[in-house]
Amino acid sequence: MAVYTEVDDDQLAAFLADYDLGAVESFKGIAEGVENSNYLLRTERGDFILTLYEKRVKAADLPYFLGLMDHLAEREFPCPVPVHGKDGQALRTLCKRKAALVTFLRGISVHHPTPEHCRGVGTGMANMHLAGKGFDKTRENALSVAGWRQLFDACKPRADELAPGLAKELEEELSYLEDAWPDDLPKGVIHADLFPDNVFFLDGAFSGVIDFYFACDDFFAYDIAVCLNAWCFEADRSFNITKARSMLSAYRSVRPLSDDELEALPLLARGAALRFLLTRLFDWLNRVDGALVKVKDPKEYLYRQRFHRTVTGPSAYGLV
Amino acid sequence: MAVYTEVDDDQLAAFLADYDLGAVESFKGIAEGVENSNYLLRTERGDFILTLYEKRVKAADLPYFLGLMDHLAEREFPCPVPVHGKDGQALRTLCKRKAALVTFLRGISVHHPTPEHCRGVGTGMANMHLAGKGFDKTRENALSVAGWRQLFDACKPRADELAPGLAKELEEELSYLEDAWPDDLPKGVIHADLFPDNVFFLDGAFSGVIDFYFACDDFFAYDIAVCLNAWCFEADRSFNITKARSMLSAYRSVRPLSDDELEALPLLARGAALRFLLTRLFDWLNRVDGALVKVKDPKEYLYRQRFHRTVTGPSAYGLV
Repeated sequence: MAVYTEVDDDQLAAFLADYDLGAVESFKGIAEGVENSNYLLRTERGDFILTLYEKRVKAADLPYFLGLMDHLAEREFPCPVPVHGKDGQALRTLCKRKAALVTFLRGISVHHPTPEHCRGVGTGMANMHLAGKGFDKTRENALSVAGWRQLFDACKPRADELAPGLAKELEEELSYLEDAWPDDLPKGVIHADLFPDNVFFLDGAFSGVIDFYFACDDFFAYDIAVCLNAWCFEADRSFNITKARSMLSAYRSVRPLSDDELEALPLLARGAALRFLLTRLFDWLNRVDGALVKVKDPKEYLYRQRFHRTVTGPSAYGLV
Repeated sequence: MAVYTEVDDDQLAAFLADYDLGAVESFKGIAEGVENSNYLLRTERGDFILTLYEKRVKAADLPYFLGLMDHLAEREFPCPVPVHGKDGQALRTLCKRKAALVTFLRGISVHHPTPEHCRGVGTGMANMHLAGKGFDKTRENALSVAGWRQLFDACKPRADELAPGLAKELEEELSYLEDAWPDDLPKGVIHADLFPDNVFFLDGAFSGVIDFYFACDDFFAYDIAVCLNAWCFEADRSFNITKARSMLSAYRSVRPLSDDELEALPLLARGAALRFLLTRLFDWLNRVDGALVKVKDPKEYLYRQRFHRTVTGPSAYGLV
């Protein structure tokens, strides 16, 4: 967590000349996200986050991400709202990087979610899925089943460095998922990275979502599957069915799940676990000592992956 | 610039139970300073900076630093104000580190100070020197002339890696300064690190000072000497006499300088330049590739050091 690109006061002043935000009162680099440089900016008009997009974000995807935040905010879904310059543009350039200014979203993320937090994210996610309807841009999920083989091939030769036999285990799992992956579930805009880091709460109540830089068009139930993995496992690797039930029942009370979606959940949860296992494994195998970004433990997702393989139906997630 | 110690929401909640600040609205790690971990905290009661002191700050010095901020704030000098817990204590423990909460100070630091900014820091510094009077704690300046020999000895064997002949040049300079250093100039609390990073402005006007973690008791004129080096040289290494004149005349209009202080300025400026040259040289010789902290260029201070050696009197700094 760090600021990669330093913006000085002169560069900031030149950038802000294209907006109508009044005098600057404060400007501080913040250690948020691992992909971009972020600053907290306070002006006479309020608080904002300035993001400079570093190399891991594709410039061609930025209109989708910013447009989505505009679309969701217009439908009153709580998320950062892009601030448009005097010329109407939200996406600009600063220090040779693509950059955008968004409104500051109040709330804090939770490190140890309770069932009540899981209920909050379930409701919030369902509202987000409904609010995304009618968004006129599209973006494929580059990290869904069609993208996993390439990631796996890059990791395969050294995968056993993490755990003996891992390459074979993942090869079998990937082949199974490629065959069994559904193609006809309800689709729409999903966040695809709705980890506790990216969900804010105020006094325990859901207050909004940040970091839409993996958002894409995919199965709504896949977003739920990502959350089952990210919110419902304990530090001791056990699955907390109370948390899952809270999340899923809250979700369904806003957006009902079809029988097909329910049946597909265990498979989607296996897939979602494999997706994060593969990206973490890739980062772990290619880690650099002393780098700015802390590498996350891929094993967490190996154990989640294995758990979902034992699941025979959605009742394992607390659904009746 | 990074956050070294991560504080999660549970740790934060436990820490804040000892204060009376209402519900948390936001909590973000900020990339400020190079020595400590800092967070921006917003609660119902306002904005605060939470600092966790990492290993480079001596725990025994913290009561001096926090007490000084209390003392200055009571005298209406604009600086962060320590927030005291329900038990009256400002210095606490969090994540096994000493930690303190201070109020948020509005303003931004400037990267390219103008003569007007130099005037602002001159006035602000003089007011700080006056406000420090009566502070009941003392702290020696560990990085004044008595501390330089040890630092030089650690750098000497490899000093020529930076510039051929540097070890000899610094040896001579250090011996000269040790002999000539004054011992009877007006003394009091000084900041000792009043670089542009640590001074805030609002709409171009001085708005306050942060980062008192080098503050100590020493000659007031030594603080001025540090600022002559930090504020009045251009990127092309030239000395900007207009900036120096602005700073010094603004200072004198608040706190007049004695003849002894004026006469000593060139010598103090040589010493202040040597102090930063030595610490930067030490950091540069002991740099680690890929480390979190960017190493500053020691040569900047070598050129400043050499400039002040050519100065024969305070008129070189624009004084009449």
